[in-house]
Amino acid sequence: MEGQIPQPIRCKAAVCRAAGEPLAIEEIVVDPPKAHEVRIKIVCTSLCHSDVTFWRMEDFPAVFPRIFGHEAFGVVESVGEHVEGFAAGDAVVPTFLGQCTECVDCGSERSNMCSRYRFAVRPGLPRDDTTRFRDRHGAPLHHFLGVSSFSEYTVVDVNQVVRIDPAMPPGAASLLSCGATTGVGAAWKLARVEPGSTVAIFGLGAVGLAVAEGARICGASTIIGVDLNSEKHELGKKFGVTHFINTQELGDKPVSQAIIELTDGGADYCFECIGLASLMNDAFRSSRQGWGKTIILGVEMHGAPLSIPSLEILHGKCVMGSLFGGVKPKQDIPILADKYLNKELELDKFITHEVSLKDINTAFDLLLQGNSLRCTVWMDK
Amino acid sequence: MEGQIPQPIRCKAAVCRAAGEPLAIEEIVVDPPKAHEVRIKIVCTSLCHSDVTFWRMEDFPAVFPRIFGHEAFGVVESVGEHVEGFAAGDAVVPTFLGQCTECVDCGSERSNMCSRYRFAVRPGLPRDDTTRFRDRHGAPLHHFLGVSSFSEYTVVDVNQVVRIDPAMPPGAASLLSCGATTGVGAAWKLARVEPGSTVAIFGLGAVGLAVAEGARICGASTIIGVDLNSEKHELGKKFGVTHFINTQELGDKPVSQAIIELTDGGADYCFECIGLASLMNDAFRSSRQGWGKTIILGVEMHGAPLSIPSLEILHGKCVMGSLFGGVKPKQDIPILADKYLNKELELDKFITHEVSLKDINTAFDLLLQGNSLRCTVWMDK
Repeated sequence: MEGQIPQPIRCKAAVCRAAGEPLAIEEIVVDPPKAHEVRIKIVCTSLCHSDVTFWRMEDFPAVFPRIFGHEAFGVVESVGEHVEGFAAGDAVVPTFLGQCTECVDCGSERSNMCSRYRFAVRPGLPRDDTTRFRDRHGAPLHHFLGVSSFSEYTVVDVNQVVRIDPAMPPGAASLLSCGATTGVGAAWKLARVEPGSTVAIFGLGAVGLAVAEGARICGASTIIGVDLNSEKHELGKKFGVTHFINTQELGDKPVSQAIIELTDGGADYCFECIGLASLMNDAFRSSRQGWGKTIILGVEMHGAPLSIPSLEILHGKCVMGSLFGGVKPKQDIPILADKYLNKELELDKFITHEVSLKDINTAFDLLLQGNSLRCTVWMDK
Repeated sequence: MEGQIPQPIRCKAAVCRAAGEPLAIEEIVVDPPKAHEVRIKIVCTSLCHSDVTFWRMEDFPAVFPRIFGHEAFGVVESVGEHVEGFAAGDAVVPTFLGQCTECVDCGSERSNMCSRYRFAVRPGLPRDDTTRFRDRHGAPLHHFLGVSSFSEYTVVDVNQVVRIDPAMPPGAASLLSCGATTGVGAAWKLARVEPGSTVAIFGLGAVGLAVAEGARICGASTIIGVDLNSEKHELGKKFGVTHFINTQELGDKPVSQAIIELTDGGADYCFECIGLASLMNDAFRSSRQGWGKTIILGVEMHGAPLSIPSLEILHGKCVMGSLFGGVKPKQDIPILADKYLNKELELDKFITHEVSLKDINTAFDLLLQGNSLRCTVWMDK
């Protein structure tokens, strides 16, 4: 490839032209990567709830037309100027959260929030907010979270690309790009769940089940799943869930009371994985006096504040939150890939469906109906 | 003393007969210590805001007549059955928070909330909720926080007594019993302030200034004091405060914005030391993305919940709270005493006034008028 100047690529992508409308498979042009950018041939991608949230959203930061998708696995096709450490052919996962590796946050073990290129939901790429996508008429198409993986090719900032062991199967690697890492990371990196501890997980979607998987790996002895859907009981067992509470079957008993009884005082770690202020409060009340941690992972769906009893936090409780489960992408995703390859971390069980790009709207339907955890979307099938 | 059976003691105490009324110096009877109890001759005590809060309170858990006071230094006069590790003549401080040293919480470095004898504001002593105080008519007088140090003699559960180096001056030792330890501990034990870090303290009363003192000892490079009273600026400097913000002089600028500008992104550690929900929110917003910790020390004075932006906590922020600054009394107070004796921790500057027991209402007046940090009340003067 040396000496060759990357050219625009014509390829297929699933384009969203208006909020909530089915995606259209269109032929688009993907421009060459600029400085500090990498062009990736996407092998497969999967659909995450955040895609659906912004697909539905009508107002800013929603913009259209846009190419969604931010959970994927691919191979580097070409690199722009000043890109070090990546070359054509590298197996990679793009990530919605960047890591410049040079700022004070990237240099600290305490933070995963790069302060040089701050996380924001922009229409374009992070350095100049411009786009590398054009439709067949030459009109620009917006990026999503700097990834836009619902396309055969995409351009991503070098800070948002992680090289990954090529031994990783593409479907499993794609999950490390967002959902599985967020949940597993929240237990492993953020909460630092300890062997023998008690964990309560509010909401057994893909992220909640990934928290269970992370807690299982960390050696938690009790993992309580809380959900409105009793079918999650059997499903949860595959991910290490040891006890299940359907909040609709508790009658007048608050879920916190049920968890306090089950854990003899409250869970050591309570994870909110839905994004509901009332559930965040339940999680906090379910946490143990003395050292109970409540970990917020869900984006509150109505924009409501987190509200908790001010007296109760004085009893040694703590509430924390993070994006991407506190994971530093370039440092921690390879560790999780190793755990997968060592058969410590199980990822394949998250993949409940597979479709080809032309059927990507089926992946939306399955997620909206609550019928899938993760649907892998294959580009070449 | 061996073989002698402790007898009731007649002595003087400041008794509160009704909410908000001046204390009356009365002759009372202090019964001998029962099993697991220690009778202490109080040398000096000091007045803390929690005394004032419960002195004013009209409804349960307020009860009258009651002997207030929970910050003190004294000498063991006699011990009840099954008391090990204490003997008459020992220099001690009583503490409102107990440490049984045997439960899972007392055995853990993560908690200071003894789960065997849970903290509660009871009318009597913790094991049987009975009283050791009678007035001259034989009528019972209630205890306060298990300490009741506004008396020449008091009886305290052995879990709430800490032996202290007799080289400690009584006035300084008394401060370790509550206020100074709460603030210093919050910086040292709970937040674990690191050298070079930035700290913002909301409310420069005795506890807030003790946080500053703790942050100073931990090596914080920037200590921002936030208060409505500009006189706290000069005062704060004595405790390590490097910058001062009077929120009334900011105009339309939110205090969080001022702190974010001053610290280039937000303070590493924000302490709320007043007990106002709006200030807890300000503290949270002033904390840094990535790793900012907000530490709640104040008891919300209107019972309002802690309410914070749910999206912002996802940016790597954390809120925590504790009683007694996360300090384990029997383990950590002797360490703080050593720090004082080594001239590392400065306590004498907290003592702004001294009175004798008969003038204890003056201590209330001084605190209510905001004119004192700590007023030492001497029993023998």
